[in-house]
Amino acid sequence: MSPPIFALVGRPGSGKTTLLEKLIPELNRRGFKIGTIKHHVHDFEMDRQGKDTWRHKKSGARTVALSSPGGLGIISDVEHDHAPRELLSRYFYGVDLVIAEGYKRSNLPKIEVFRKDISETPLDGRNTSWRAMVSNDDTGKDLPRFSLDDISPLADFVIENFMAEKDPPRATLFADGKPIVLNNFLEKFLRQAVTGMITSLKGCGEAEEITLTIGRKGEHERK
Amino acid sequence: MSPPIFALVGRPGSGKTTLLEKLIPELNRRGFKIGTIKHHVHDFEMDRQGKDTWRHKKSGARTVALSSPGGLGIISDVEHDHAPRELLSRYFYGVDLVIAEGYKRSNLPKIEVFRKDISETPLDGRNTSWRAMVSNDDTGKDLPRFSLDDISPLADFVIENFMAEKDPPRATLFADGKPIVLNNFLEKFLRQAVTGMITSLKGCGEAEEITLTIGRKGEHERK
Repeated sequence: MSPPIFALVGRPGSGKTTLLEKLIPELNRRGFKIGTIKHHVHDFEMDRQGKDTWRHKKSGARTVALSSPGGLGIISDVEHDHAPRELLSRYFYGVDLVIAEGYKRSNLPKIEVFRKDISETPLDGRNTSWRAMVSNDDTGKDLPRFSLDDISPLADFVIENFMAEKDPPRATLFADGKPIVLNNFLEKFLRQAVTGMITSLKGCGEAEEITLTIGRKGEHERK
Repeated sequence: MSPPIFALVGRPGSGKTTLLEKLIPELNRRGFKIGTIKHHVHDFEMDRQGKDTWRHKKSGARTVALSSPGGLGIISDVEHDHAPRELLSRYFYGVDLVIAEGYKRSNLPKIEVFRKDISETPLDGRNTSWRAMVSNDDTGKDLPRFSLDDISPLADFVIENFMAEKDPPRATLFADGKPIVLNNFLEKFLRQAVTGMITSLKGCGEAEEITLTIGRKGEHERK
């Protein structure tokens, strides 16, 4: 199940990360597990210099993982700039809501942080993806406005607007990692056929999400 | 496609990471993309203090992603200590071979680094998962031995033993992220049925790996 997502946008310095530092704990208190995505236009170094995984990466590994009983860290080269939604189903397993910081040019639904001492005007968000403003100033926009300091009503809004409804199940298909467009007929055909084949298998009947992968394995997985 | 995997084991200080720093570039030179997995028994901090993703995680996010045109970093809480093979298909896409550093108690095929100035004897690897030793000393083991300094023959051995053959395609099934055991009949039935349904879709015919996911989506993905 891919979690729902929205983007928290705003001009540099408007306080997006600071707001997230209040909003995430508030959503946690209400029992939701939150994921975040931050975009970085340049190369980055996420790891700490000198650590083993850092040395692996430095010596040319494409992907390094650091795995512990409570946490998992993955750093990988990629061939293209991933849109937030490409990351949802693969990396945000067990998360109830993903908040992307930035991505103001995406078509994600958006909440904007606006502070008049940073900029006279909000972002030019005339498109329909803007859902709300977080500001202590008049934003000049016909959108719900929430205070920068009182987080609880904003959390209510987020839950109500992004997490309230569940869609019916859908089938999605990837070939070598690239999404394959399915029309409604094919989507339903594949979903119902495969669901029918596996529904009586132990563990499959009540599952929220089924993933079937067909591909070659390395020799190590041979019986 | 899950890549093949082996574990590089050895006593602390024997030079596993140092050897990887030579072996990874050698395998890169031969055109292979390498992934690594490092186990950490305690909690870790992979991110750099004060960065936005670090602040997101610190404030309670379960999963944070840092995405750039050339790289992707993911740090996540997990509920259990992942075995290396659990990580392969989800996180090592596009990698030709994964080397796990450590995991000496796993059933992964193993190559041991041994230095007599660190320990009198190699690890007690009497089980059948030991494949080779890397040492400039007599190891007392009836296994192929490679020099610590001349990496090319070791790279030959790794390629020949872990990457030479490709298995036929197999279907694997997950329900809510947990693997479902398929007997041979079911595996073949599912694989052939689904392959047959999608093989004429554009982009699916020659794909190395097909992934079909059936589950609920967030509201954002509605048409």
